[in-house]
Amino acid sequence: MKVLLVLAHPRRDSLSGRAADAFATAVAANGHTVECADLAAEKFDPVLREPDEPDWSDDDKVYSEAVRREMARIERNDATVMVFPVWWWSMPALLKGWIDRVWNNGWAYGARKFPQRRVWAIGIAGATEEAFAKRGYDSAIRTQIDIGILDYCGVSERRFELLYGSIEGQPYPERILRRAEELGRAF
Amino acid sequence: MKVLLVLAHPRRDSLSGRAADAFATAVAANGHTVECADLAAEKFDPVLREPDEPDWSDDDKVYSEAVRREMARIERNDATVMVFPVWWWSMPALLKGWIDRVWNNGWAYGARKFPQRRVWAIGIAGATEEAFAKRGYDSAIRTQIDIGILDYCGVSERRFELLYGSIEGQPYPERILRRAEELGRAF
Repeated sequence: MKVLLVLAHPRRDSLSGRAADAFATAVAANGHTVECADLAAEKFDPVLREPDEPDWSDDDKVYSEAVRREMARIERNDATVMVFPVWWWSMPALLKGWIDRVWNNGWAYGARKFPQRRVWAIGIAGATEEAFAKRGYDSAIRTQIDIGILDYCGVSERRFELLYGSIEGQPYPERILRRAEELGRAF
Repeated sequence: MKVLLVLAHPRRDSLSGRAADAFATAVAANGHTVECADLAAEKFDPVLREPDEPDWSDDDKVYSEAVRREMARIERNDATVMVFPVWWWSMPALLKGWIDRVWNNGWAYGARKFPQRRVWAIGIAGATEEAFAKRGYDSAIRTQIDIGILDYCGVSERRFELLYGSIEGQPYPERILRRAEELGRAF
């Protein structure tokens, strides 16, 4: 299976970047091929402007060249895995705008569904699982991403994982890398 | 009271823009002054890069010039009101990145709290109230923004409002504008 790995962290050597590497290595060891989309390094612009506004009366709207390039990158792969740091209990703007712009009407939802069956989202969360649960941040982000984006776009083989405690000191970061590798093996 | 009105829609003449106008007119009629921050027109860059990464060991980190300019704009006002279209059950990347970058450690949370007591968030939602409630999108976005951002940053006079049905045809858009004006009067 060809896998598009989307990374949305300003530093490639961040814990998110290393978790993406651990995941990718395990996925490749399973015989899959991995294409990496490092949105920060590529300077992807997450601001949706008029050319990428959905037109509810036109299922075949032609979006901007930058968006069509991203759509083509998804279409030439069989699955997408997004790895990102959880900021303000959701995605960084960089990844949110990739969704805002690329997962658009007539292509990811509406007249057509997202062109891949399998999409996983792996969030690297600063706080602990207990801290997320205390305020309901865990179910809020799951509702937004797993139900509101992946299920909404018809992704049947979807998986949403939060790897907790990235800024809590050891053993959390080690656990996060180990868990990312396990997820890669399970892919 | 001096109010910073933050708008995050690609088109100034959108329903979100007109709702911001209706709100601002009513607020001004109450004797407040309004400064508008049109993030799209100003080409605000929502991508947090290394200079704006929080440093958990430094409460006094000096952020990028663009971020310091946004902090100064908030500090010279007494309150902030954000008006935005709800995309994927949350903020557009443009506004998310304004939060990611500007509402930073040591200034909005951590050693210090957000410098204003009053912040309102007004989301213009495409679907109806019933559609949001069916999947729990209403409570998910409230948890993220009202609890996870505003309350987290110590904003005591906070208010989170969703104005529903922007793409459902009349009478919804008219209702949204009327409700925005009512909110302005209540400010």
